[in-house]
Amino acid sequence: MSKILVVVAHPNIDNSLANSRWLTELSKYPDRFTVHQLYQQYPDFQIDIAREQVLIEQHSALILQFPIYWFSSPPLLKKWIDDVFSYGWAYGGGNKLQDKPMGLAVTAGATAESYQGKDSLENMLAPFKATIYYVNGNAVPTFAVYGVGYGLTQQGLKESAESYVQHLNNLLN
Amino acid sequence: MSKILVVVAHPNIDNSLANSRWLTELSKYPDRFTVHQLYQQYPDFQIDIAREQVLIEQHSALILQFPIYWFSSPPLLKKWIDDVFSYGWAYGGGNKLQDKPMGLAVTAGATAESYQGKDSLENMLAPFKATIYYVNGNAVPTFAVYGVGYGLTQQGLKESAESYVQHLNNLLN
Repeated sequence: MSKILVVVAHPNIDNSLANSRWLTELSKYPDRFTVHQLYQQYPDFQIDIAREQVLIEQHSALILQFPIYWFSSPPLLKKWIDDVFSYGWAYGGGNKLQDKPMGLAVTAGATAESYQGKDSLENMLAPFKATIYYVNGNAVPTFAVYGVGYGLTQQGLKESAESYVQHLNNLLN
Repeated sequence: MSKILVVVAHPNIDNSLANSRWLTELSKYPDRFTVHQLYQQYPDFQIDIAREQVLIEQHSALILQFPIYWFSSPPLLKKWIDDVFSYGWAYGGGNKLQDKPMGLAVTAGATAESYQGKDSLENMLAPFKATIYYVNGNAVPTFAVYGVGYGLTQQGLKESAESYVQHLNNLLN
């Protein structure tokens, strides 16, 4: 079961640039990646917790992919974490995420230069990293593309999508 | 209109200890505080954006009160921010939050000792602080109580509730 679960939380994927381009690239390799779009699966925010837990257990790694909104994730991803990383499953006697490679793949509207110092993207994503550590996951580096709000060329999008797949492939080797 | 809007995001307030005790204390001073419970108002996550914006405009200060879940807020508060702090109202030509005192009031299940170094509560709440700065709000210090998951005495709860009211009163002077 060496396959990566990519949980995608984009409230408006049809209007996205980078996120949708990334999914196009991932879809070329269905043997490696399962793309799981939360906003399509759960438009009413009512998450099937048992189903999600089984899905995670069936994969060797977990990536959370989302656009940065107000310096964090869209809300449905937070609800997914709150619901799915449950007591007795992820912690509190449960250890289903222990040693599982877990990481983030994010798109930021702002430029890299605007995420500096204490406002670095790494600092903004600290709650997710702390969550991964808390459940004893194996944290992998964040994959990020900046400046999406300022326009990316088709070539830039293509390159970021290919880099993303390469980044994920490293988790399968 | 020197009155504080306290936006509360607790998915299960009836089972809460500190958050519900705080609300009991706030309810003694209806002339100073408007308590607005998101999970009661919007159980289906469908937020009336115009109504929320008017509510904020009618108050002199804005406090976001919530329990820390997985090192951040419950998801409905994030949806509220994403929806209500809109382009043309909060930024992008809009300035409705400019100079408005804005802050957080949070309860943490873990002890203060567990929030150390890069895992400090301040670091975990950085996305909210960055949001306040982005909309040119007047950031006020976070009010926090730790160790809720390890039990607080009735006296401890009472003292934290009274300290909270005092903290908020300072925003009215």
